[in-house]
Amino acid sequence: MISIGIDVGSVAAKAAAYNGEKIICTALIPTGWSPRESGTHLLNEVMEKLSITKTDIVAIVGTGYGRVSLPFIDKKVTEITCHGKGAHYIDPNIRTVIDIGGQDSKVIKINREGAVVDFLMNDKCAAGTGRFLQVMSNALEIDVGQLSDLAEGAEPANINSMCTVFAESEVVSLIAEGTSKEAIAAGLLHSVCNKTYSLVSKIGVENKVYFSGGVSRNAYLRSTLSNKLGVEIISSEQSQFLGAIGAAIIGYPSSVQ
Amino acid sequence: MISIGIDVGSVAAKAAAYNGEKIICTALIPTGWSPRESGTHLLNEVMEKLSITKTDIVAIVGTGYGRVSLPFIDKKVTEITCHGKGAHYIDPNIRTVIDIGGQDSKVIKINREGAVVDFLMNDKCAAGTGRFLQVMSNALEIDVGQLSDLAEGAEPANINSMCTVFAESEVVSLIAEGTSKEAIAAGLLHSVCNKTYSLVSKIGVENKVYFSGGVSRNAYLRSTLSNKLGVEIISSEQSQFLGAIGAAIIGYPSSVQ
Ligand code: SF4
Repeated sequence: MISIGIDVGSVAAKAAAYNGEKIICTALIPTGWSPRESGTHLLNEVMEKLSITKTDIVAIVGTGYGRVSLPFIDKKVTEITCHGKGAHYIDPNIRTVIDIGGQDSKVIKINREGAVVDFLMNDKCAAGTGRFLQVMSNALEIDVGQLSDLAEGAEPANINSMCTVFAESEVVSLIAEGTSKEAIAAGLLHSVCNKTYSLVSKIGVENKVYFSGGVSRNAYLRSTLSNKLGVEIISSEQSQFLGAIGAAIIGYPSSVQ
Repeated sequence: MISIGIDVGSVAAKAAAYNGEKIICTALIPTGWSPRESGTHLLNEVMEKLSITKTDIVAIVGTGYGRVSLPFIDKKVTEITCHGKGAHYIDPNIRTVIDIGGQDSKVIKINREGAVVDFLMNDKCAAGTGRFLQVMSNALEIDVGQLSDLAEGAEPANINSMCTVFAESEVVSLIAEGTSKEAIAAGLLHSVCNKTYSLVSKIGVENKVYFSGGVSRNAYLRSTLSNKLGVEIISSEQSQFLGAIGAAIIGYPSSVQ
């Protein structure tokens, strides 16, 4: 008996499969133009990987902004709830989840059962999200995945504007002035760190802290944020799958919800 | 005896000359890369137009974000104060100035002397400023000056995001879906109207209301905002020169400051 969670985010769609004990499979693809297509694709991919058919699946739970477009799901659950459950699965001692995705950022506080105690979300402003870093990487003509390595060891350039639009102009000026890409990359990651810090500060931080979402792979940002908050921030290979993992677990019949 | 005000904004630099009774000359050029150069250019242009020399000038007052870069000014005054004075000159019955410039927007309440009673400014977020409209016009491949005429009479398209970055993606999707430029233009101007409305609402509006700044030339936006606020909003040819006019008046010796 297997439950499946599908988390269709703005940039990436993620799936996870749960057998009642542990996550046995994850998959990820770009969301592309159609949340419905990417969700369907993921479901098929997971079934293929596990060599199972629909009769083996006890439930499919959808989450993420694209969940409304998935025709085959049994249940829709908010990202916040799923992230809480997913974090609890990864480590029951996690109390705070900082999630920076492609188009939003959130801080979620959970209790020892993985239930959400409090949360704060920014999905109105591109600053401090993956989108900010994407726009800036385009301006720098680099891949967003290079930002962390570039920033390492550089003296951060001053980026005065939080706003993505104004900061982009600053980056263009800095490039024109001959400021190194390394310094600009470091400055940009500090900007995201500051924006995240103010979000986290409003709700408070409690150990253990887990960093999730696509942007959590950025090691420089994780360590900068950890220094600024004065707490250790853990992450893992599964950090992008938190929502999907939580959704899969919620779908499993015996799960305490 | 003539005083000169120079208002170097993010997009346009403006100058005005005052003879103690009335504004006798205005000039406007793009700010370009150098606030200093554009300011110097304007000063020379005004002197030339009026056939005067430096000895005829009693004072030069600088305002706008670029005022710090002007080497030849006698005094620096904030935009807020200058806008108040400028509005008072245009019509002493003005009590509220709504200014939407290239990179910021502000609401200023003034008393019957033109002194600032209260104000609120947004210069942190590109949404609701000229920059927003500039970005969107680029996406629509039109000139920003065409927006108002395009929007006239169209059923506004729904733009859900306030954020410039997210709204730009919406515009790209709307274009791809075949939504007319007219409907998108109207939707965008409604977005700026809503953003301005929430700024104005925080501080309140008192008659007469004057609309200034580069964006005030947008007639569709002015009437939409007027409907939404339920007040008449006046504007004039001089609406872009409010800061420069105020600065010139402040520079004149006998002026009550
Ligand atoms: S500050 Fe910039 S990035 Fe944030 S909502 Fe405003 S326009 Fe968007």
